[in-house]
Amino acid sequence: MNSAPATMQTTSDINATQLIERMGRDARAAARILATIPTEQKNAALRAAAAAIDAAVEQLLAANEQDVAFARNKGVPEAMLDRLILTPERIKAVADAVRDIAELPDPVGKVMTSWEQPNGLKFKRVRVPLGVIGIVFESRPNVTADAGALCLKSGNAVILRCGSESLNSATVLANCLRKACADNGLPEAAIQLVPTRDREAVGAMLSRPDLIDVLIPRGGKSLIQRVMGGQVPVLAHLDGLCHVYVDGEADLDMAEQVVVNAKMRRTSVCGSAETLLVDSKIADTALARLIPALQTAGCAIRGDAAAQAINDLVTPATEEDWHTEYLAPVISVKVVDGVDAAIEHINHYGSHHTDSIITRNAATAERFLNRIDSAIVLYNASTQYADGGEFGFGAEIGIATGRLHARGPVGVEQLTTFKYQVQGNGQTRP
Amino acid sequence: MNSAPATMQTTSDINATQLIERMGRDARAAARILATIPTEQKNAALRAAAAAIDAAVEQLLAANEQDVAFARNKGVPEAMLDRLILTPERIKAVADAVRDIAELPDPVGKVMTSWEQPNGLKFKRVRVPLGVIGIVFESRPNVTADAGALCLKSGNAVILRCGSESLNSATVLANCLRKACADNGLPEAAIQLVPTRDREAVGAMLSRPDLIDVLIPRGGKSLIQRVMGGQVPVLAHLDGLCHVYVDGEADLDMAEQVVVNAKMRRTSVCGSAETLLVDSKIADTALARLIPALQTAGCAIRGDAAAQAINDLVTPATEEDWHTEYLAPVISVKVVDGVDAAIEHINHYGSHHTDSIITRNAATAERFLNRIDSAIVLYNASTQYADGGEFGFGAEIGIATGRLHARGPVGVEQLTTFKYQVQGNGQTRP
Repeated sequence: MNSAPATMQTTSDINATQLIERMGRDARAAARILATIPTEQKNAALRAAAAAIDAAVEQLLAANEQDVAFARNKGVPEAMLDRLILTPERIKAVADAVRDIAELPDPVGKVMTSWEQPNGLKFKRVRVPLGVIGIVFESRPNVTADAGALCLKSGNAVILRCGSESLNSATVLANCLRKACADNGLPEAAIQLVPTRDREAVGAMLSRPDLIDVLIPRGGKSLIQRVMGGQVPVLAHLDGLCHVYVDGEADLDMAEQVVVNAKMRRTSVCGSAETLLVDSKIADTALARLIPALQTAGCAIRGDAAAQAINDLVTPATEEDWHTEYLAPVISVKVVDGVDAAIEHINHYGSHHTDSIITRNAATAERFLNRIDSAIVLYNASTQYADGGEFGFGAEIGIATGRLHARGPVGVEQLTTFKYQVQGNGQTRP
Repeated sequence: MNSAPATMQTTSDINATQLIERMGRDARAAARILATIPTEQKNAALRAAAAAIDAAVEQLLAANEQDVAFARNKGVPEAMLDRLILTPERIKAVADAVRDIAELPDPVGKVMTSWEQPNGLKFKRVRVPLGVIGIVFESRPNVTADAGALCLKSGNAVILRCGSESLNSATVLANCLRKACADNGLPEAAIQLVPTRDREAVGAMLSRPDLIDVLIPRGGKSLIQRVMGGQVPVLAHLDGLCHVYVDGEADLDMAEQVVVNAKMRRTSVCGSAETLLVDSKIADTALARLIPALQTAGCAIRGDAAAQAINDLVTPATEEDWHTEYLAPVISVKVVDGVDAAIEHINHYGSHHTDSIITRNAATAERFLNRIDSAIVLYNASTQYADGGEFGFGAEIGIATGRLHARGPVGVEQLTTFKYQVQGNGQTRP
């Protein structure tokens, strides 16, 4: 199927794969922002959404009438139609459910557990959103609001795919939530509804683990069987493309020790650093120390123009280098404009495994720890600490970058996962 | 490929699919036993395994020599051979690593969190093993012992699939662990090594989510890419085939209220009961009350001979009924010989969603709560409490029966998941 139905103006010229790709990219960008939005701002958006749903009763009833007519025409049995039908009472219940979600505690940022290792490394396990959640549901239009609100509350962006019968009702509900987001300073793409009945959309959603972190089916057994696929789940990580960012306020002695250790202690382990990012504020001084130190340790450097200016041994880095896990005595080096640019680079090119910041500024470190979307984020310590033994876990069987963890009822807290935030004082691993 | 290499005597007449099916069933049976083995017994087996590895140096060196010759013959580069080679020092390190794992704290049974709801239901989140873990690794033979020991410590059965070069070394190591299990009263099938180089085995492992709960690849990127598949992970449950077991020491007034509520409060929800199991000790009295009560509430009964004897409205249950989630006013009824037979029925036919026991005997309840392999297990309360709202989680987005949850280093604690154990005093959901 190469074209969406003609009624879907915004998507009439693209197929389901392209549509999901576009929505997924928008969702990913929204998710990065949502992950650190304060609780009160999310709650304000949820209350505004509830009010918007209350105010949209007439519009919802009209859209729902179209849906019911579509379903009757399709031959949906009367008993099934009941799930689809909205009434003023049901619409009020939908709005109330959204208001209730605003009142729930916010799980994001909660420290699940914390401890200190004998070497002084302090560990925290902190709840973070899953990221982008795909929800595939059938006829009940209220799922649009319930699921959208739960995802928003837990800091996740959501792509909703409703059953073909409820598309008009779901569109009105999604628009209520989207407008409430926009009016409260949240990205509109926090909540997106697939605007087509194209059946290929579900397959397109399932096939993009890079864009959608978790898919939740809500519906009958055949839907769930389809999305579950029948493969054994896997605990693993594919890449360990780890970064060290040397901030403008870094202690350069510490930076030198940590960077050399992060890259060279063992180059074949997944926690070894592959890319060094240096704040432009201190680029000249820092590169003049770090690059020769790495070279002395036996490391080849592929760098941007600033790195190449240090000496003739630095070869040019290409776009491919930022994507490459060398697992060898090679590092790519780039100058970036401050911590936000470093965060953007790492979240874009990284593998969500382990990344480290070197800085004396606690607020900058906090920003990095909160915004880097990786299983392990360190502060003034080497990425080579990415190891169960170093965490005090004893032996380990591997490192997982997956996000799934929940069992039993999946409420707002179960829509989160965790990450490890690690604070050091310059530790390098012997 | 229809036959394993001729050197594999035990498997020469079956293909990889059949082999993995057989190993998976043995592993599942072993996992059920391992889940409740006391810590000290697991530790004794681990220490015995370490001693057996120490004692097997000569045998290991000889097996490893065969492996190295096989690898050289295959053209494996010398640099890669180093991963494969065992020396007396490396063998000692392997044994020491197993001894270290014996010293780790046992995560199984740990209460992660507990709370009480206003209605008096007491909730506990308890760590339980994942079940059956598949490990696919490449040439390092030590993974056999490390991974095997970690799985054993965390109460999981493991199916190890080594690289073709390390099969002889891995076989000796696996036999050390298996013998240590047998000598310490643990099932030998706790640790199994795929005894063939048949490349189809990995695919066969991946395609059996019913037999293997989680697969962990240890090796290069192409291996990991292959097992990861490229599909978005799913949070869901496929079936809610929930059971109520009425024990010989049940309060029959409570049993009647709970059973009717569990089945009939809402028949279309995933937490509704589909099968009633009754202890043979009280079968006549209990069935004479429970069956008419269900019938009065509008429920059709499909039963075994004992249930059919109650009245003519009870129709015979077939094998298919024990597998069926009716989501309708129908229930299957069976008499079983005590709690262990109930546990066996539920673990065999159930969907690992929600199951309940009615009994006045706390020890019997404890046995049921510990041994039923479901996300939610209740004691003297209705299965209809399987709902985030009833847990005090607020709104929920669904109920997941998956087991995955870990992120970051995966040590012995991360090889567990949790379940909810819920104690009531006869609550039925209004």
